[in-house]
Amino acid sequence: MAADATGDVGGNLWTASVLTLFPEAFPGPLGLSLAGRGLARGLWALEVLDIRDFARDKHRSVDDTPLGGGPGMVMRPDVVDAAIEAIAERPGPLVYLTPRGRLLDQALVREFAAGPGLRLLCGRYEGVDQRVLDAREVLEVSVGDFVLSGGEMAALVLLDAVVRLLPGVMGNAESAAEESFEEGLLEHPLFTRPAEWQGRKAPEVLLSGHHEKVRRWRRAQAEDVTRQRRPDIWRRYLASRESGEKDEG
Amino acid sequence: MAADATGDVGGNLWTASVLTLFPEAFPGPLGLSLAGRGLARGLWALEVLDIRDFARDKHRSVDDTPLGGGPGMVMRPDVVDAAIEAIAERPGPLVYLTPRGRLLDQALVREFAAGPGLRLLCGRYEGVDQRVLDAREVLEVSVGDFVLSGGEMAALVLLDAVVRLLPGVMGNAESAAEESFEEGLLEHPLFTRPAEWQGRKAPEVLLSGHHEKVRRWRRAQAEDVTRQRRPDIWRRYLASRESGEKDEG
Repeated sequence: MAADATGDVGGNLWTASVLTLFPEAFPGPLGLSLAGRGLARGLWALEVLDIRDFARDKHRSVDDTPLGGGPGMVMRPDVVDAAIEAIAERPGPLVYLTPRGRLLDQALVREFAAGPGLRLLCGRYEGVDQRVLDAREVLEVSVGDFVLSGGEMAALVLLDAVVRLLPGVMGNAESAAEESFEEGLLEHPLFTRPAEWQGRKAPEVLLSGHHEKVRRWRRAQAEDVTRQRRPDIWRRYLASRESGEKDEG
Repeated sequence: MAADATGDVGGNLWTASVLTLFPEAFPGPLGLSLAGRGLARGLWALEVLDIRDFARDKHRSVDDTPLGGGPGMVMRPDVVDAAIEAIAERPGPLVYLTPRGRLLDQALVREFAAGPGLRLLCGRYEGVDQRVLDAREVLEVSVGDFVLSGGEMAALVLLDAVVRLLPGVMGNAESAAEESFEEGLLEHPLFTRPAEWQGRKAPEVLLSGHHEKVRRWRRAQAEDVTRQRRPDIWRRYLASRESGEKDEG
């Protein structure tokens, strides 16, 4: 079995096991910055398996034309199933990245980070034969309502979002963006020095040193931008605030 | 000016100009597969600029603490503005990747692919000083409701989605997934040979050779999965079908 492993795969470490036809896509950008430093320091582990190594015929074919006709190619159930079997003992849910899946959001990211790891199946071509998805317990996840050239890019995004939440990866740096998402709002605008730049002044309140006023201003700004830009998030926020008030009352 | 350019940047080619603190993230996974072959064959061009090269002090600092306090760091307006100025003449809208932005969807992807190119600003730390976003005509785009370690991963996803639609990159291969998105539905399930695998048979209709029956079955399946998994998309689909019927009537 050709596995390209980095870190203590199979130990108690949070481990990502990736099935792909493009193993060279990993770690890719995950090898940089905090995620990359975390990988090098053994804060998480990455194992990448080439699905083509599980093809059994002499052409090492992994795909075939769609039954019923139509464009593109479909990944064969037998080959994909053999690849899944090879990581059956790895920790965490088996996630198939597809636009048909549950939309990834920060709540699901946190759930993945709190678990023992992830097994990720990256589709190429049109996608994977439905029967292997039915036969295996697969969680279908989408990173958004757009079409990518394959699941690799989606897996990289998912892993980046998850890995930064693993203990030690970000150090002690809380993130304002995260605090904001926790509260169900988009983030307030950000300002830094210089306090005046090209005739544009930063809001007075941020220079006041009055923490409670700053907090209230930021909350109002976060509410404004959420209401204007994302009515869907705004409605959820209002609904959860109402139910929270009911719980308290 | 330190620019790492691949392809005929500044010609009539669709060009991505990327501002980042991690230039080594590019082309990364975009160098593989069809996008990578397209880049090598001159079907699109990529230019990557290191924002740090636009810092002016001796420490080459690009960030500072947030005014008003709080966790993390904010990218300085003067440094980011100088980097934007360096690609002012490059084609296409200036896109800042942020969870506060307009959600990326396939319609926006198609719009970007139909244009002359993109200028992409990748934020790091908490994000960019609001004043530079106000001063420049910036289109804020989000790839999803989750927090990434930086804009680079989002830029890679966005470019992957766009580049595959550029003329010649995918060859003549239509994509079933795309057809499905065009119609406002999730994709129908896919099947390929063997027609029976581990006791699981592919649906009879797909073996019938009856094109119209196959088409109707796939449409019904696509409607089912969309209704079950994504009520939001389903409602839009129903609304657009109704208004279409009115237009015809």
